[in-house]
Amino acid sequence: MQMELIKKQEFDKIKNLDISIYNKLGIIAEMCRYNTLVAVKKAGSGHLGSSLSSMDIVVWLYYYEMNTVDVGIDNVNRDIYFSSKGHDVPGQYAVLHSLGILSDEKLLSLRRLNGIDGHPDVGINGIEANSGSLGMGISKAKGMAWAKEYQKFKGHVYVMTGDGEFQEGQNFEALQTVVQQKIYGLTVIMDHNKVQSDKLIDQIISLGNLRTKIESFGWEVYRIDGNDLRSIETAFQYRKEHPDKNIFIIADTIKGKGVSFMEHPESMLVGNGLYPWHAGAPDDVNFNKAIDELKIKIQNKISSLDITPIIYTDIEQISNNYENSIPLNSLGEPISEAAINNHKLSVSSEYIVEAYGKALVNAGMFHPELIVLDADLSSDCRLRNFENNINEQFIENGIAEQDMVSMAGGLARIGLLPVVNSFASFLASRANEQIYNNATEKTKIIYGFHYAGLIPAGPGKSHQSIRDISLIGALPNVEILQPCNAIETSMILNYCINITNKNSVIRMNIGPSPQKINLPANYTLTYGEGVPITHGDDAILFSYGPVMLNEALIASELLTAEGFGLKVINMPWLNRVDISWFEDVIEKYDRIFVLDDHSIVGGLGDFLLSELVGNKILNNKSFIKYGVEGYPACGTPIEALSYHRIDGNSLAKRILLNK
Amino acid sequence: MQMELIKKQEFDKIKNLDISIYNKLGIIAEMCRYNTLVAVKKAGSGHLGSSLSSMDIVVWLYYYEMNTVDVGIDNVNRDIYFSSKGHDVPGQYAVLHSLGILSDEKLLSLRRLNGIDGHPDVGINGIEANSGSLGMGISKAKGMAWAKEYQKFKGHVYVMTGDGEFQEGQNFEALQTVVQQKIYGLTVIMDHNKVQSDKLIDQIISLGNLRTKIESFGWEVYRIDGNDLRSIETAFQYRKEHPDKNIFIIADTIKGKGVSFMEHPESMLVGNGLYPWHAGAPDDVNFNKAIDELKIKIQNKISSLDITPIIYTDIEQISNNYENSIPLNSLGEPISEAAINNHKLSVSSEYIVEAYGKALVNAGMFHPELIVLDADLSSDCRLRNFENNINEQFIENGIAEQDMVSMAGGLARIGLLPVVNSFASFLASRANEQIYNNATEKTKIIYGFHYAGLIPAGPGKSHQSIRDISLIGALPNVEILQPCNAIETSMILNYCINITNKNSVIRMNIGPSPQKINLPANYTLTYGEGVPITHGDDAILFSYGPVMLNEALIASELLTAEGFGLKVINMPWLNRVDISWFEDVIEKYDRIFVLDDHSIVGGLGDFLLSELVGNKILNNKSFIKYGVEGYPACGTPIEALSYHRIDGNSLAKRILLNK
Repeated sequence: MQMELIKKQEFDKIKNLDISIYNKLGIIAEMCRYNTLVAVKKAGSGHLGSSLSSMDIVVWLYYYEMNTVDVGIDNVNRDIYFSSKGHDVPGQYAVLHSLGILSDEKLLSLRRLNGIDGHPDVGINGIEANSGSLGMGISKAKGMAWAKEYQKFKGHVYVMTGDGEFQEGQNFEALQTVVQQKIYGLTVIMDHNKVQSDKLIDQIISLGNLRTKIESFGWEVYRIDGNDLRSIETAFQYRKEHPDKNIFIIADTIKGKGVSFMEHPESMLVGNGLYPWHAGAPDDVNFNKAIDELKIKIQNKISSLDITPIIYTDIEQISNNYENSIPLNSLGEPISEAAINNHKLSVSSEYIVEAYGKALVNAGMFHPELIVLDADLSSDCRLRNFENNINEQFIENGIAEQDMVSMAGGLARIGLLPVVNSFASFLASRANEQIYNNATEKTKIIYGFHYAGLIPAGPGKSHQSIRDISLIGALPNVEILQPCNAIETSMILNYCINITNKNSVIRMNIGPSPQKINLPANYTLTYGEGVPITHGDDAILFSYGPVMLNEALIASELLTAEGFGLKVINMPWLNRVDISWFEDVIEKYDRIFVLDDHSIVGGLGDFLLSELVGNKILNNKSFIKYGVEGYPACGTPIEALSYHRIDGNSLAKRILLNK
Repeated sequence: MQMELIKKQEFDKIKNLDISIYNKLGIIAEMCRYNTLVAVKKAGSGHLGSSLSSMDIVVWLYYYEMNTVDVGIDNVNRDIYFSSKGHDVPGQYAVLHSLGILSDEKLLSLRRLNGIDGHPDVGINGIEANSGSLGMGISKAKGMAWAKEYQKFKGHVYVMTGDGEFQEGQNFEALQTVVQQKIYGLTVIMDHNKVQSDKLIDQIISLGNLRTKIESFGWEVYRIDGNDLRSIETAFQYRKEHPDKNIFIIADTIKGKGVSFMEHPESMLVGNGLYPWHAGAPDDVNFNKAIDELKIKIQNKISSLDITPIIYTDIEQISNNYENSIPLNSLGEPISEAAINNHKLSVSSEYIVEAYGKALVNAGMFHPELIVLDADLSSDCRLRNFENNINEQFIENGIAEQDMVSMAGGLARIGLLPVVNSFASFLASRANEQIYNNATEKTKIIYGFHYAGLIPAGPGKSHQSIRDISLIGALPNVEILQPCNAIETSMILNYCINITNKNSVIRMNIGPSPQKINLPANYTLTYGEGVPITHGDDAILFSYGPVMLNEALIASELLTAEGFGLKVINMPWLNRVDISWFEDVIEKYDRIFVLDDHSIVGGLGDFLLSELVGNKILNNKSFIKYGVEGYPACGTPIEALSYHRIDGNSLAKRILLNK
């Protein structure tokens, strides 16, 4: 599919025109919207809706309000802008690119290894704060403002928040503390586009009377049309006139602004009431439709000006540098093209989460005590069927994981069986103390840890969950399980609902399974036991979940070709093992490997090792853990896997070398 | 010291009188205050201030408002009351005791093994929710109310919150979600006594205009004098008249109410501006003063009534049953009296945290970039000197750990070195995602994890931090260290400030060190290395911190008497080890033990085992981890240690048996 980018020179052309600032930035905003679409389309995913809604403000800030470009992005006296929600970073990248802070190649490397992350990362030029998990931004901005004041640095701090994001309680902690902490002159801008993941805020958890609420925390509120540059100007004019005030700008915006069919509310009709452009790239047809619309809009805006038409450059001429560079793994060794090409790119149509969603509906119909809780990820976590069909057993909690988990604790105390859902990185971490507190009450709660593990790696380290097993591991009455296919998903949910009296975590990969993992026809889930999925006499490897089992199977195949037999065990129990089964299964092997879809610290590897040694059955066998070392890499699945040397090719090599 | 309790019969005597409800409950409240004081004095610690401020409301609820006693504490249609802050549970215990729900023995077993925990636990009769960590209560109450409505159970849910507690953002999540979740008829009561740990809320983080703030979240506010029964009555009358409303009762109360010299604001003068009765038992003189005052008050109130004087029963006649029962350890084996008596009860005058506080002041004077952050535990974390003397480098954040940690992230991004302090259980857990997010920015932050480990065990499992190493362990750029004595504390702080470029955690025991741990005169902290503190040829044991090293030393002494030489290594590095040092030090031993002041999952034991096996130096040696298994027991230090079989006596036995 052919794609074209608007290069920096074109932006300079507009920038240097002697026209009104509104006309000028109006054109630049549309051009940045255009490039945002290209970057997201090239990446194959990314958050368009809020990149587009916040664009006019971001352009205004960088081009008119802030000194950042003039003094330099590393100058201590620079103005600082960052987004708390982070979703909108493709839009910010496009603006940074238009200013020459990010190169063409960089902009086109969205969500790629060594490229620019799917959520903001300070390793990227011009990015001031890591985000992605919601609700931390105002707190961080507070710290930056305090630090500037303390060190007598100049420069202003602007932080953009989402509106759905305001369901997170940390925002209110931050608002509440500024007065006492003598922080002055902070600007919060809410990109109030009224839409969360795919529903209206008022359908999820309404923010009520926002102005009154925020004023009650001692802040001055200034409300504008955030897609109107003149209206935006008034807010920042007011800002300048009141340098010591903390100002909260509520910017009413339109999600998807600038591309007619992506704009709320029209777009909601297309999506049958659901907003379709929060995340994910448009298909070719919609992409071309959007691009054409923006091109016409830009052309219309410049038609009366005495300039040459905007040049659109074929990205094939740009991205070669990046595409041709050889990616390196975590040891700095080149990742061979062969390794990447050999990787099974085809994906099966099986989704673990879909099986989970279905099994949950079935269970819900027979278990009136089963209550499903959601934190605005109903669609991603495949809860929508449950929500729509068994609505009386469904509780929407908005983006407030702590409240959700403690509420589940209350439900459980009064005899219900809560099934709590969110992405693993948010649920295990942000609501960790609440999960602990519930567990100490010895009630029973099921936690659905969605989006667990390294893959998908595009959204970046805020979303990749490689710590969740370690975050739960020290809880004595919580069992952690991870299914490898649809059938095992049902078995595990059944176990959690009907068999165990403990709390449980069901850890799930979110994407399509790279291949459908086959289990023996007579397989049944048995407490603390795994099941072989390949046979071999030379070594044994334990792993779990379709993503890593796929790599294990690739490794096993490669090893077989080398005359090395690897027995791969699917081990769905991540913190429980039946010792006599374990002893039997490892008996004849001198070499034991464990492959974690998790940090090598605190995952299945550490657990099994502790059991081996604690039960005195290691017997001088070699034991090696594979898993994620360091922070999870952003990139395509194979890039991230290869970077961490846990793709099938790397594993086969490492197993042969026994290291 | 002689103490006397008012037994249930005496309460019945008052309860059955034909006098006004205000007079009756007024007397009962004073009697419960009296018993609260006795229970806390007997325990040696406990939270008096808020037990006393909330007493009138709690008495009114149980004696007049709720059906709980009539229908039974396990009846699904019962009214539910619980405290979100949990500090005030000694007061609630006294009320439950007065109603016959807790026995005399139970009330007098506050903070003892198999007794009643320092913070609420549902294992105790009449307690509806675990708490202790702040800000979870409204969320839980919401869950309970939802579950009652869903199951058509009758009964109302009342939850008490603190006012300082309202600095936690989760409260606002909970307030914000009720409307959408169709929760009706919930009652939140804020015990608004205006004082946090030891300072006024308005000196820490003001709540601003509370009424406006809470109303802006869609709640109806009803404000009363929470120490006046007639005023209390009006609120609950209103409650009954509006069964479908969610009502937030702001109860203005007086911290320490009922004992003149414990009442705010008078008591603040005695404490030089600090409230002295938040936690901890009064000394004998103050105890007697308080008791005498309450006795006179009670006598005055009943003097005009036609009843016999209140009988005060010597607790020696009561507590024998509990005292004489033989406590059992986690395996159900009796803990021998000898084991408990043999335990070194004397404590040294050394406090790790005091050394930390001093070292921090010294460092702060030379490091203007060092900024200390506190979450309303300045006194407990020994930050008060820093706060008072280097105030420009001190940031008070109130009880809002998430905001504090993210704010530190912002400070670090702008070139400062934040030192973030709170209790380990709150900081590592509640702010876990924020610590992760900061760490991914590769800045440098020091986290002071106070009150780490099993001891003190009186406050119960919300405060005992035995998961914090595991919660941080999978972060690649965070080094975790724990000092064993004052000198090592300075060395570690120096390392964290001046040497490492990583994030660091300084894990600290909060109480007095059981004994001063002696290190070799020439000892210096060396990256990844420990230091022997005893010598012996038969086995080697790694541990850290004064609490567990004390037990290790006791074990070593007992073993020496048996002719068994135990080499004890102080290992201040909890997730780093120098392998060549490690290999050397273990070389001649066949048996390696690790003693964790932490869960046996994810602590030093798991880390060292992983290193031993990963580096192929285990060589078939025996390796055994000791640490906390299951949830941490509440009790005196030796009770908790013995329960978990990690006291010196148990350790000596286990080491001899090599298990």
